[in-house]
Amino acid sequence: MLDRPSNAASRTSRAALDALAELLGDRLALGYAEREQHGRGESYHAASPPDAVCYPAGTEDVSRIVRVCAAHKVAIVPFGAGTSLEGHVGALNGGVCIDLGRMTRIVALHAEDLDVTVEAGVTRHQLNNHLRETGLFFPVDPGGESTLGGMAATRASGTNAVRYGTMRENVVSLTAVMADGTVIRTASRARKSSAGYDLTRLLVGSEGTLGIITELTVRLYGIPEAQTAAICAFPDAAAAVATVVAMVQCGIPVARVELLDPRTIQAVNRFSGLALAEAPTLFMEFHGSPAGTAEQMGLAEELGRHNGMLSFEAAADADTRNRLWRARHNVHYAIQAMRPNARVWSTDVCVPISNLPRCIADTQADIDAAPFFIATVGHVGDGNFHLGLVIDPDSPAELAEAEALNDRLVRRAIALDGTCTGEHGVGSGKIRFMALEHGAALGVMQAVKSALDPLGIMNPGKVLPA
Amino acid sequence: MLDRPSNAASRTSRAALDALAELLGDRLALGYAEREQHGRGESYHAASPPDAVCYPAGTEDVSRIVRVCAAHKVAIVPFGAGTSLEGHVGALNGGVCIDLGRMTRIVALHAEDLDVTVEAGVTRHQLNNHLRETGLFFPVDPGGESTLGGMAATRASGTNAVRYGTMRENVVSLTAVMADGTVIRTASRARKSSAGYDLTRLLVGSEGTLGIITELTVRLYGIPEAQTAAICAFPDAAAAVATVVAMVQCGIPVARVELLDPRTIQAVNRFSGLALAEAPTLFMEFHGSPAGTAEQMGLAEELGRHNGMLSFEAAADADTRNRLWRARHNVHYAIQAMRPNARVWSTDVCVPISNLPRCIADTQADIDAAPFFIATVGHVGDGNFHLGLVIDPDSPAELAEAEALNDRLVRRAIALDGTCTGEHGVGSGKIRFMALEHGAALGVMQAVKSALDPLGIMNPGKVLPA
Repeated sequence: MLDRPSNAASRTSRAALDALAELLGDRLALGYAEREQHGRGESYHAASPPDAVCYPAGTEDVSRIVRVCAAHKVAIVPFGAGTSLEGHVGALNGGVCIDLGRMTRIVALHAEDLDVTVEAGVTRHQLNNHLRETGLFFPVDPGGESTLGGMAATRASGTNAVRYGTMRENVVSLTAVMADGTVIRTASRARKSSAGYDLTRLLVGSEGTLGIITELTVRLYGIPEAQTAAICAFPDAAAAVATVVAMVQCGIPVARVELLDPRTIQAVNRFSGLALAEAPTLFMEFHGSPAGTAEQMGLAEELGRHNGMLSFEAAADADTRNRLWRARHNVHYAIQAMRPNARVWSTDVCVPISNLPRCIADTQADIDAAPFFIATVGHVGDGNFHLGLVIDPDSPAELAEAEALNDRLVRRAIALDGTCTGEHGVGSGKIRFMALEHGAALGVMQAVKSALDPLGIMNPGKVLPA
Repeated sequence: MLDRPSNAASRTSRAALDALAELLGDRLALGYAEREQHGRGESYHAASPPDAVCYPAGTEDVSRIVRVCAAHKVAIVPFGAGTSLEGHVGALNGGVCIDLGRMTRIVALHAEDLDVTVEAGVTRHQLNNHLRETGLFFPVDPGGESTLGGMAATRASGTNAVRYGTMRENVVSLTAVMADGTVIRTASRARKSSAGYDLTRLLVGSEGTLGIITELTVRLYGIPEAQTAAICAFPDAAAAVATVVAMVQCGIPVARVELLDPRTIQAVNRFSGLALAEAPTLFMEFHGSPAGTAEQMGLAEELGRHNGMLSFEAAADADTRNRLWRARHNVHYAIQAMRPNARVWSTDVCVPISNLPRCIADTQADIDAAPFFIATVGHVGDGNFHLGLVIDPDSPAELAEAEALNDRLVRRAIALDGTCTGEHGVGSGKIRFMALEHGAALGVMQAVKSALDPLGIMNPGKVLPA
């Protein structure tokens, strides 16, 4: 039935595949290319193709697929847009992929409640295009063209989190299929509730290991009357970070504040055709009324001056602003383009903001000594920053070097009361840090996992060590 | 050993009490008055005294107590300040109370990170007094003088939630003692993380049924440069609610917006010595820069005028503002004082804000027909409102009437995609609505409960039906 033997560890029996084929017809794919494409995200992790790819048309379909898989004890790996960075979608021990990418319905827009319910396969661009006429927008903006289901599953965030929060704050309610096929809705659309356990937030960030998110209601925001942006260059990263720390402490409601180091600026200039000075630079954006944003920007400039900034350039017009932020969003691809056939290993630590200067400074020696190009880019308002290690994924030496550097970085962040992942998730890539970060709490996570997925079929090998 | 026989259903054996006495010495109380006082909150629910009251001095003490209770299969009821409204602290089947009220240490203030770690017994007033010199404040403000541990356990909120969020958004990390005595810390102090299951938010709102919160790190905010308040009277509640809906939709970042109906105004005037017009009235507060708050207030006034408001009175000076908000915070006691020896049964539904006008309007007939005084007060920006039913708790007829009215109200709210409790919690009082509100999701909650508390000793009879 397969056009190439499945991997040795495959757990998907012929009987299970037959049952899925009967259920899905041509919405079950078994070809190798399609399976291979579903076995990897955008990271350095090697592909682990599933034995089959299912394309459900809705929540009930997902439930039926899960019931078949549960009956046959087949592993299930949910898939959104394949933009994950920590090996979330690899079928490490075989099993089937459930690709939610065709579930792209906007189920219900409640503009008056500032929320919208969508199917899991809707992407953030699709959603914001749909909202264009309403004066509303959805702010969470990871770098890739991710699906909202995938973003919820990894508790994603992006450049707006400092003002608008992450998926943790912006998911109101979920529809999910649990490990036995049961369909649940985690909450009503009420803005707050004290009615029982917060299953919404238990599933947000659970990466398909507890249930499959099939629909979600997310918060929307009015497009601010005024949006202004500014670019501010500094003599060193410490001065830039100190400026951001001061902004947060002063309560300036900055919408975005991103640090790009000189190498990132170099990559961005080359990829996006800009001509920015190659210095540590803050990209900032302010949302509010015209008077409010002017006030915020004035305060930010004052704090920058106080910290010895080299230049401060406002970009009030929408074109310049959009060009800058598009360039920022393409950073992953810009960095990758610095070296042919390279992959970017993106680190993702996050620390309390007061520890950020130290964490970045202590990492500098590693960056300087690395045998490959490293770009630093940070959501510094959240204490979160990424190193983009531009490596040859086929070089065991470079992979080992990257792994050792990442290892030191993660331990440094955890020692500074931080986390191994601010927004990318655990996948299979960060599993080995979970015990260090969580201690005894890891046992509680494992107890929850065993209770909700007793057969261990839900995205096995992700989030929790065995 | 007890100075009065424990209730018939007591589960606390002599051996367990002896072990606790050995552990705690005079920090174990067995007297009836002390037990009775710990068996009830501020609601109409009858007291269910525990068999003993423990006063731990810290997390390790709590862990030791829990280990004793687990060994003897004794039920555990955590207790903060006793301000709960849904029978959370009743020892329904006996067992011991763990009173965290003596754990009042401010563990670590990180002003630069806008967070503070406190022991669970710290009250919000104690915390804000402690912060007085720092320019920071903690916004969540339920009516009673609650402890932060209790507020986290019930996922409490208050008048500021529309701007600052509830305990769900404002708890960064928890230290908790689980059912076997294991001490966990749920998260680092990083502002965001994608590292595994969100145990922080699983415990927030779990009401002591999964673990006992002993320490918590919460977010702080800079005291806004400017704060202005306004009182706005309307011809009817619908016009007031329409104004709030418009404010939320326009994105006015109002810090507080509270609706008080004419009867509540009457009670407040009497209790707090004010002379407000007895009309549906909005109390509003705006936080920001002087220019920003003036702008917000101007917009709010415009929307009020558009909806036919009767009057709009600004209260820019701190004295007037504080007097008004103190009066608002004392509403529960003001309503209770309308009738000697009465208790207030406070309902607590929350609906999507677009459904709020209908929910309030449909409830009006019940309010008009009730044989007792009913005050309506709402955190209308969140879609949450309370009826204060001023009843004689010794009158079975009035209790039955109140129960029937609350039952209709809850079903109405759930039918409008809302929740049976916006901020008070489930306790024992709302258990019977959990199946209606959550459907199949209730089974997931029960599976989590069984996994984390296999002996069923953690605050039994609360949150989840048996």
